[in-house]
Amino acid sequence: MYGLCGKAKAHPGGRDALVEHLLKAAAALQQLDGCYLYVVSRAADDPDGVWVYEVWHSQADHQGSLANEAVKELITAGRPLIASFGEYFEMTPMGGKGL
Amino acid sequence: MYGLCGKAKAHPGGRDALVEHLLKAAAALQQLDGCYLYVVSRAADDPDGVWVYEVWHSQADHQGSLANEAVKELITAGRPLIASFGEYFEMTPMGGKGL
Repeated sequence: MYGLCGKAKAHPGGRDALVEHLLKAAAALQQLDGCYLYVVSRAADDPDGVWVYEVWHSQADHQGSLANEAVKELITAGRPLIASFGEYFEMTPMGGKGL
Repeated sequence: MYGLCGKAKAHPGGRDALVEHLLKAAAALQQLDGCYLYVVSRAADDPDGVWVYEVWHSQADHQGSLANEAVKELITAGRPLIASFGEYFEMTPMGGKGL
């Protein structure tokens, strides 16, 4: 498995719009079997911060999703909602509850 | 919902044992309805690093789990496997795939 946890910062006051957009992305990923988890969260310590946590069958599945037409459109449409990117951690999920 | 993503560092060479222990914790959490996700991962950039990503119904459910006898025993038994704690991020999950 392949996992990543990354943070993005919305423009001031724009977090709700960014979260809403990322939840649309999550809905589009429902059809991709290689995506196991895609959780969108508000950061607790930053009023503009949004965390996305993803678990994929493999890094290749994640990479391949970026070529999916629906995903590409969502990335293009979402980019203006992001002021900057923050922490980004890659990991190898070994199991657990909910996987 | 309440989420957290935290990193622990095993003693050199001890990561597999720590991961195995945390997967036992994940198994114990299967019975707790308030715990939605508990994913144990190897950090990609640190041979001793382990990430745990958790999503709970509420912060109170997470807090309450620490009083659960099985969880308490697992925390006590696991503590010697951890050399140090690293990053720790709290968040409010808003939805997504797998929740």
